[in-house]
Amino acid sequence: MKLIRSITRMQRISRALKAEKKTIGFVPTMGYLHEGHCSLVRKSVRECDVTVMSIYVNPLQFGPAEDFTKYPRDLNRDAALAKKNGVDYLFVPDDSEMYPASYRTRVEVDGITRTMCGASRPGHFQGVTTVVAKLFNIVMPDSAYFGQKDIQQALVITAMARDLNLPIKIKVLPIVREPGGLAMSSRNAYLSESRRREVRIVYRALTAARGLIRRGERRSAVIIAKMKKLLSTIKSVKIDYIVIVDPCGLLPKKKIAGTTIIAAAIFVDNVRLIDNIVIKV
Amino acid sequence: MKLIRSITRMQRISRALKAEKKTIGFVPTMGYLHEGHCSLVRKSVRECDVTVMSIYVNPLQFGPAEDFTKYPRDLNRDAALAKKNGVDYLFVPDDSEMYPASYRTRVEVDGITRTMCGASRPGHFQGVTTVVAKLFNIVMPDSAYFGQKDIQQALVITAMARDLNLPIKIKVLPIVREPGGLAMSSRNAYLSESRRREVRIVYRALTAARGLIRRGERRSAVIIAKMKKLLSTIKSVKIDYIVIVDPCGLLPKKKIAGTTIIAAAIFVDNVRLIDNIVIKV
Repeated sequence: MKLIRSITRMQRISRALKAEKKTIGFVPTMGYLHEGHCSLVRKSVRECDVTVMSIYVNPLQFGPAEDFTKYPRDLNRDAALAKKNGVDYLFVPDDSEMYPASYRTRVEVDGITRTMCGASRPGHFQGVTTVVAKLFNIVMPDSAYFGQKDIQQALVITAMARDLNLPIKIKVLPIVREPGGLAMSSRNAYLSESRRREVRIVYRALTAARGLIRRGERRSAVIIAKMKKLLSTIKSVKIDYIVIVDPCGLLPKKKIAGTTIIAAAIFVDNVRLIDNIVIKV
Repeated sequence: MKLIRSITRMQRISRALKAEKKTIGFVPTMGYLHEGHCSLVRKSVRECDVTVMSIYVNPLQFGPAEDFTKYPRDLNRDAALAKKNGVDYLFVPDDSEMYPASYRTRVEVDGITRTMCGASRPGHFQGVTTVVAKLFNIVMPDSAYFGQKDIQQALVITAMARDLNLPIKIKVLPIVREPGGLAMSSRNAYLSESRRREVRIVYRALTAARGLIRRGERRSAVIIAKMKKLLSTIKSVKIDYIVIVDPCGLLPKKKIAGTTIIAAAIFVDNVRLIDNIVIKV
């Protein structure tokens, strides 16, 4: 595995790989890797000739009151995990090269960025689409891999790639969960062991929702009320949102029908965690 | 020369050309070609293995009160001119494929899009950067050619390409002028013969400015006053702006020093025309 710091060098490598007709799989991350990231890498390794992972904690996607500076970072551990799982090139650019002083371009997806995490984190998705557009132009992948945990992000990037005619396949892979059901997230590192156990309630609420639907419930309001009740049993958990939305516009659905996303965002000790399930009825 | 209508087909062709290691030169236009466009094509033909021209009157870059519907169009004449000058692929996409109903992504460059034409035409440059980003992803050129007549557009696209790490060289070629000095523009077609003669005053004002600077004048206010006085001699001409700006931020310069852009936009019979010169002292 090669560690690449320079944008120009990464572009030169990608261009050379394409000239050799190698397919490039790309896993963009903010580092502090967990099994979720590793599952994306292994999928890329199976599907593509070469796998590039980027690690970049993108300042543009953090709000001023958010956890940009304290976001967990451990490049040595990440590099070892990346190598072990089959990454060929680990791209770790610098802020100064990604956003020099003269930087002034933004990529923005409208509509589906306004709800859910977009409502709670203004500007977040503009930061995500901007950095991902840059990374796509640098790495020039054939396929890019994202986790379903950040389902809104995956749908926003899919929309961006489609709208801007990017010749890149966006692939969304299932959530990887810890034993007990907590969705893997770099931000879980912020939590004590007891809090980790407590926030399992989020996945329990999602599975309860699925249970209700399996038993015939179709009214979103009833399902959301049940989820809220469950979450309220854990004092440390503060709900940011619980929504039942359609996967196209991410707009609330009153009745469960077709493909439906049930998503939740919570705060625990000021740490924001998200999770979701996709239901087909 | 091949006429290509489908985005997918154009992408397939570009991908195949790149696999054969051919360099692609790209001349994006809104059609109604004139010698300015043709000079870009000939430069591309000299520099690249294959030249792609696009003709697309981009609705996104026109304001609601602007001339989108009446913008001059003549595909047969354009195709003949493109072929004659050496275009290999003429890409003419449809609105419905460029902006389907679900379309919701914008690319925006901040700062330099706020002055000059950006101030007069709100949203214009967002439309330009969005469509050019799309066209770049479809055509995948090595070099793209723009005319200096639209100098702000050329600088905005250069900023976008640099900021988004697009692996594309942006080349800006000199203004081609009609005898008498009028900068060639598709919009000149809106003008009667007598109006065409009258609007030569714009270039005369620019050359008068250059004359003043050559004779030692350095005060922008004095130069702009002289230009305004000259333009006021033609009743049909209404000034939109006359500016003396630096080429980085496109912000007004009080004194002429280093590289300086002198640019003018006028209305004549509700037709908006622009022109500029670049001065080095």
